[in-house]
Amino acid sequence: MTPIETQGLAAKAASRVLARTGTAAKNAALAVVAAALRANTAKILAANALDMGAARESGMRESLLDRLELTEARIAGIAAGVEEIIALPDPTGRIENFTTRPNGLQIGRKRVPLGVIAFIYEARPNVTVDAAALCLKSGNAVILRGGKEAVNSNAAFTELMREAVAAAGLPADCVNLVADTTRESVNALMNLTGVIDLLIPRGGAGLIAHVCANAKVPVVQTGVGNCHVYVEKSADLQMGAEIIFNAKTSRPSVCNAAETLLVDRAIAAEFLPLAKKLLDTKNTELRGCAETQKILPGVVAATEEDWETEYGDYILAVKVVGGLDEAIEHISKYGTGHSEAIVTNDYAASQRFLEEIDAAAVYVNASTRFTDGGEFGLGAEIGISTQKTHARGPMGLEQLTTGKFIIYGSGQVR
Amino acid sequence: MTPIETQGLAAKAASRVLARTGTAAKNAALAVVAAALRANTAKILAANALDMGAARESGMRESLLDRLELTEARIAGIAAGVEEIIALPDPTGRIENFTTRPNGLQIGRKRVPLGVIAFIYEARPNVTVDAAALCLKSGNAVILRGGKEAVNSNAAFTELMREAVAAAGLPADCVNLVADTTRESVNALMNLTGVIDLLIPRGGAGLIAHVCANAKVPVVQTGVGNCHVYVEKSADLQMGAEIIFNAKTSRPSVCNAAETLLVDRAIAAEFLPLAKKLLDTKNTELRGCAETQKILPGVVAATEEDWETEYGDYILAVKVVGGLDEAIEHISKYGTGHSEAIVTNDYAASQRFLEEIDAAAVYVNASTRFTDGGEFGLGAEIGISTQKTHARGPMGLEQLTTGKFIIYGSGQVR
Repeated sequence: MTPIETQGLAAKAASRVLARTGTAAKNAALAVVAAALRANTAKILAANALDMGAARESGMRESLLDRLELTEARIAGIAAGVEEIIALPDPTGRIENFTTRPNGLQIGRKRVPLGVIAFIYEARPNVTVDAAALCLKSGNAVILRGGKEAVNSNAAFTELMREAVAAAGLPADCVNLVADTTRESVNALMNLTGVIDLLIPRGGAGLIAHVCANAKVPVVQTGVGNCHVYVEKSADLQMGAEIIFNAKTSRPSVCNAAETLLVDRAIAAEFLPLAKKLLDTKNTELRGCAETQKILPGVVAATEEDWETEYGDYILAVKVVGGLDEAIEHISKYGTGHSEAIVTNDYAASQRFLEEIDAAAVYVNASTRFTDGGEFGLGAEIGISTQKTHARGPMGLEQLTTGKFIIYGSGQVR
Repeated sequence: MTPIETQGLAAKAASRVLARTGTAAKNAALAVVAAALRANTAKILAANALDMGAARESGMRESLLDRLELTEARIAGIAAGVEEIIALPDPTGRIENFTTRPNGLQIGRKRVPLGVIAFIYEARPNVTVDAAALCLKSGNAVILRGGKEAVNSNAAFTELMREAVAAAGLPADCVNLVADTTRESVNALMNLTGVIDLLIPRGGAGLIAHVCANAKVPVVQTGVGNCHVYVEKSADLQMGAEIIFNAKTSRPSVCNAAETLLVDRAIAAEFLPLAKKLLDTKNTELRGCAETQKILPGVVAATEEDWETEYGDYILAVKVVGGLDEAIEHISKYGTGHSEAIVTNDYAASQRFLEEIDAAAVYVNASTRFTDGGEFGLGAEIGISTQKTHARGPMGLEQLTTGKFIIYGSGQVR
């Protein structure tokens, strides 16, 4: 048996215990985890320093170094995040539609944990704790497979969590970290059928596509966001400019940031300079269609590739369209079904956009940046699903559960 | 472009129209379908006669011939089934948890169709109409890929449905039949990413395993049922005998039929002869563990393979167990997570069984045969999912939909 298979079976056994553990006991374990993080800040920082040293030596760029770095304040923030998860309602145990059938059978659907959840993620070590806490709260054992850059930080976090969970009387194997950080371990997790109930890959588009195309275990596709803002001709132009400025530049690296601005021909000459003025304050590069280039001289020409690209950077593709139909068509063709926004004062246009755009989140007169579990009122999230089955949009605790029909009979046969 | 890719794109385009079609229009189209089936009974019977002739020539066995055969009464039954689907509530359009966030954003989750659903199924031609009607009602376009045995019947049904849907003002491409009935077309559907939103394979375990392991599009695993009935020592033994008799013999070919009987050692000597007496009336072959063989001389010895097998026939594996723990362990090891039953009068045992057995449907004192959308009060079903993600257990109209967050703003940025 490979080390990952052994870990998988240990996680499976732990998941059976966890499935019959009540909310109070799970919350108590999470409280021990939060306390352990605070009490062992020095130990975590020492482990993180090893990762930071190696990363600097390898020439990692500044923005990634920042994602990797832990500080006392960040560790306190992570512990506070665990306490926020304690405060969230436990989705498990609820019995839905419990009814008596004409034959006397009493049938209800009980929310239960999925079982074993595997996460594949990249540099940020805080994900290690967030993901483990969400899984624990929803009654699932977790197998964490972080990136090689954070290997020491992740090991320190995981060791503390395993000790904390065990101290609280639950199996340490509720939380498991895969030691191997090569592609081999990704492939091993993808093939662990009968053990992993849900695999969630987070990170680069290449990794996600590889996992979705090849996994034999159930997968939720997360976070590929080629998002659009469409400024319709009746829009409040100042609002439109502020929305695209926010959607593009408030945090360009995240999946709910906008990548393409679509603007109605009727207002393009007035709107585009207004938008550019704001976008220029953050040195955003524009890549435009021919009409955009006429209105904004000096803008680079957009190619077919630009319409398809999730830049994750201060770059925005811009296209002038003939109206709502063309905007919907463009989004249907190039969008990844994540978050799409229209800015409009036309009631019928707003309704058609909400109806016809096929995405996890569709906005009227707001920035795409709000697609987030916390912003949507779901509490903490584990990722944003861009697929339609199982979960769509921000995934909270509820999406880490499944249903089980329970039936009370008195000898019924069919 | 291959014929299946062309069909896929046509289905996708039709699904966009269907997604914005209201309940009344969908029901009207279904009413035209039902009427067309009745009015064209002769045409359908003629097509079915071709399939029956070919099947007889190929030496198909009687039970399969029966599944393939259509009669005037069966066609009337299929039309009535369409009318039952008309009567079911439409899950789409409902907006859940529509709330105003502190920043003024109004956010709700709207139930919407999945888009394009593909079905792969085998001999029974009535599935062609059932599946198409369920998809139509839930706002999805469907791609049907039936078995070669029913090719003429399926073509007749599909042609009538396409005409009926078009007569009702909806695109004919809402309903599509794949002409190619080789494994090639299964593989083509499995790889139609971006077009097929959900693929549901029904049929043999080999087909389902092939699709689940290799599909690049989202799949729901259906219908593999290695179901158990456990007669606990406190059980009403007559009730236990009647439940295993019903679970095994009322329809052995279906997925919710029982395959293994587990019986407590304390009552085995009394219970097994009682159960055997009933099972003998249907000539059920028993394959038992060594203890079973001692109590019931002449019973064949069960092998490891027997515990794993979904017989689909009048064969039952029998094992004597030491108690609840051993029963739960056996079911956890060999069960496929479909339907599991305990017969008991011990309250604590009933609760532990319900809690610890990880299956789509868990029963106390009732036959496993009730796992069915109609019996559970969900209306018609499209299949029974044995996976935990997306849908678990009988899949009704609701499971053919997904959610879409709709957000009404007034210029909010983050």
